[in-house]
Amino acid sequence: MFVLDKKEGIPFYVKIREALRAEIEGGNLKRGQKLPSEEELANQYGVSRMTVRQGIADLIDEGLVYRRHGVGTFVAFPHVERDHSRLTNFFETASKEGISVQARLLDLEVSPARQRIAKALDIAEGDLIIRIKTLRYADDVPVTLHEAYVPHVLFVKLLEEDLETQHLWTLYERYGYRVKRAVQKLEAREADHELAVLLQIEEGAPILFKERVIYAEDGTPVEFTYCYNRGDRYSLTVTLER
Amino acid sequence: MFVLDKKEGIPFYVKIREALRAEIEGGNLKRGQKLPSEEELANQYGVSRMTVRQGIADLIDEGLVYRRHGVGTFVAFPHVERDHSRLTNFFETASKEGISVQARLLDLEVSPARQRIAKALDIAEGDLIIRIKTLRYADDVPVTLHEAYVPHVLFVKLLEEDLETQHLWTLYERYGYRVKRAVQKLEAREADHELAVLLQIEEGAPILFKERVIYAEDGTPVEFTYCYNRGDRYSLTVTLER
Repeated sequence: MFVLDKKEGIPFYVKIREALRAEIEGGNLKRGQKLPSEEELANQYGVSRMTVRQGIADLIDEGLVYRRHGVGTFVAFPHVERDHSRLTNFFETASKEGISVQARLLDLEVSPARQRIAKALDIAEGDLIIRIKTLRYADDVPVTLHEAYVPHVLFVKLLEEDLETQHLWTLYERYGYRVKRAVQKLEAREADHELAVLLQIEEGAPILFKERVIYAEDGTPVEFTYCYNRGDRYSLTVTLER
Repeated sequence: MFVLDKKEGIPFYVKIREALRAEIEGGNLKRGQKLPSEEELANQYGVSRMTVRQGIADLIDEGLVYRRHGVGTFVAFPHVERDHSRLTNFFETASKEGISVQARLLDLEVSPARQRIAKALDIAEGDLIIRIKTLRYADDVPVTLHEAYVPHVLFVKLLEEDLETQHLWTLYERYGYRVKRAVQKLEAREADHELAVLLQIEEGAPILFKERVIYAEDGTPVEFTYCYNRGDRYSLTVTLER
């Protein structure tokens, strides 16, 4: 066990940890860059590999670096951290954190609702829905593929709107439906070929998948969404009460 | 566009969908089993591949089957669905769903707290913590690796308890700390070698990762946890209000 005694100086592993942190924050070690090996760091700082490992363990805990088994330790990219204690949208969260956000419209089409989506939106199977498929960027990096389905009968005017600069929720509100509540299911999945290409990641890379139904104040389900978030750039925070 | 007209009979894709559903629910197609190819199904039912695809799309939406790019479509395993509208524990949720749950204690040790964990638990770096590492099974399948860290000073008696049959929260309560609130961060990650072995999945498979701090009614942080859930067997549902 180590002792934190100011008179004795700080422990070696804390020195290593803070030295690495300074290298990362100062930009000498860039995001995505591989750290020198434990052996190289041990030689460089004149400490044991165990001490190096202890220092790095703290940085992994913090999320500043991450380890890939058999490959090495890398400087992490900052995540878009969504606070899901309250229902917020991507644009609200990101802009609060000073992240620049963009949306690119990939597809906009009217088609008959499949079973699952019809059920969720409380319409009949085969009723028309509008599918709005957008790719969302945080600081110019594609982070989320967003596929929203909305009842055509409620939001036919959406088809004439600029969906890259206006947020869907703002538009729903303009048409009389104020977003109030969302029920969402979260899963970890693998990126398929399409996602890998769009999100600029490898096929099989981890995706934080959300499926959600959004309800207006009067209880009307206004949107069913599939949301595919890059695992290495996206995290969610939730506060729960017992 | 298709029309749902009872007089005309049901559309072909619905017939395919319901036939496949019956095969799965009846057990002719088992969990994890690959579905016949679109071509085989098209021949079998005398319909077009497009019709087969449409029927399968509904089952994918529902989560009854899943597609692996370039490999095929498979019958899905049931997920442990955790409802996170309220703070519940794995054992409460699973037993409510009729899933049999077991915990296996992998490791129990006392060690000095690393920086991140000390901060979260509001203790000093290097203060003693108890690490409780358990593997959790749902219906005999390993689903979650659970690593809890608790302050030694609060819960020294835990070391004498049977941690496989009693839930941690019950024990905290016995020692005067009633669990009230949790703040948790969710991410999608890749399984490393250790996780792959423990959870019986492939290295690199998706993991729903949770990091959380649990607070007692008086605000004391009682537990810091890393929780690694198999992506193919675990999903979370959250309800959010604006």
